[in-house]
Amino acid sequence: MLTPAEQDRLHVVLVNSRNPLNIGAAARAMSNFGFAHLRVVHPYPVAFEEAKSAVNAKPVLRAAQQFERLSEAIADCAFVVGTTGAERNLLDPVSTLDSAAQTIRARLRSGLSIAILFGSEKVGLSNDDLSRCHLLLRIPTRPEHPSMNLGQSVAVVLYELIRQTGSPGEAAASVPLATTGEKERLVALIVEALSFDGLAHRARPDTIEAKVRRLVRHLALTPSDLHHWLGLLRQLLYKLRTHRPPHD
Amino acid sequence: MLTPAEQDRLHVVLVNSRNPLNIGAAARAMSNFGFAHLRVVHPYPVAFEEAKSAVNAKPVLRAAQQFERLSEAIADCAFVVGTTGAERNLLDPVSTLDSAAQTIRARLRSGLSIAILFGSEKVGLSNDDLSRCHLLLRIPTRPEHPSMNLGQSVAVVLYELIRQTGSPGEAAASVPLATTGEKERLVALIVEALSFDGLAHRARPDTIEAKVRRLVRHLALTPSDLHHWLGLLRQLLYKLRTHRPPHD
Repeated sequence: MLTPAEQDRLHVVLVNSRNPLNIGAAARAMSNFGFAHLRVVHPYPVAFEEAKSAVNAKPVLRAAQQFERLSEAIADCAFVVGTTGAERNLLDPVSTLDSAAQTIRARLRSGLSIAILFGSEKVGLSNDDLSRCHLLLRIPTRPEHPSMNLGQSVAVVLYELIRQTGSPGEAAASVPLATTGEKERLVALIVEALSFDGLAHRARPDTIEAKVRRLVRHLALTPSDLHHWLGLLRQLLYKLRTHRPPHD
Repeated sequence: MLTPAEQDRLHVVLVNSRNPLNIGAAARAMSNFGFAHLRVVHPYPVAFEEAKSAVNAKPVLRAAQQFERLSEAIADCAFVVGTTGAERNLLDPVSTLDSAAQTIRARLRSGLSIAILFGSEKVGLSNDDLSRCHLLLRIPTRPEHPSMNLGQSVAVVLYELIRQTGSPGEAAASVPLATTGEKERLVALIVEALSFDGLAHRARPDTIEAKVRRLVRHLALTPSDLHHWLGLLRQLLYKLRTHRPPHD
């Protein structure tokens, strides 16, 4: 997890973006995940204006800064990360997103300002752009279809950064289960319903009870669900006791 | 990491999608991350046609299946996962994406077919949709801006699924579980029994059905156990239909 102060040191930099929808989508993902600082380098002019004037332009988009050159956009950043889709003949090794994210979080914690660069939809980051990066990262896509949509790749990268890796309270599986003793009440009600007015043909009472117990034992019931099942069974028993058959 | 065979058991289900760009973006993320099976439930007709006829429509999109009802789209899936943005007043606990992904991977490994549902851009999944889910997950967005773009949320969820965690041996229940379609037969019989001769006081039919479906959904039933429960339910219904009350 990143603190707000750490998140505040991260800058998302879109280089040569062509599509206003993508700029808007990047801003939306930033807002979703708590990153405020969008920088746009040499966007297609119409694209940036359209994105900013979109009806639901978020604060992120309104506060976005525009630069003519990448060098200006990253001048105040101590650590620059480039994103790349396809495997290119790159001089620098490319980290997968999860390991790159560990580095980025560590640098943010140590107080550095960081820029993460996303290239244009068509050609990605240029070799000149990449030469300014301290770290290159790659989202682990299929080799047959590596190129992601710009808005989606911003969302995935930011998600990985804020993703909780050791989150304490995550296990939904830690919901306590009903005990055997509690389940016996359910067994008793089901057997009572099945035995009502005589057992089904060929059935023996102990056989039925053992069968029901075995079936109930297999159920991973929470105390709350058990409570609901008991209520439904009582409704059924009530029907059995009070109902008048159709032809009487 | 998931094997191709495991990935092949996952179905992405878009419910009531309105925007062809989002359907296309979902398909693109699926292709990026190696998931082939897209199902679209009751899309705005134009949206689906536009998405399919897009110039660069990917194989995922061309192979997408269309359904009128969610129940049909998930009938062959044994485990159904719902995605939800805002914290709603939900009956079921909501897991964060990373812990939900552990469960999903374990189920895929154990051979289950899984559906992950994404709701419409405007309102997300309905309560009826959610009542069909075994697990609800939430991408950890900011409370002030929880609602993600549909295409971006599909990308983030699929990324988390294929993200390398280095946990090969997550416990997988190796027993196959009954599918949603099979469980619906149990739901129908229980509702029929509870509705016999009129519903209990204060109960509404749709409320009862949703409640029973939610309770049955929580049961990790094997096909064999399901078969036995269906038999017991039929016995109860027979009793209800034929039994003569004591004072007649």
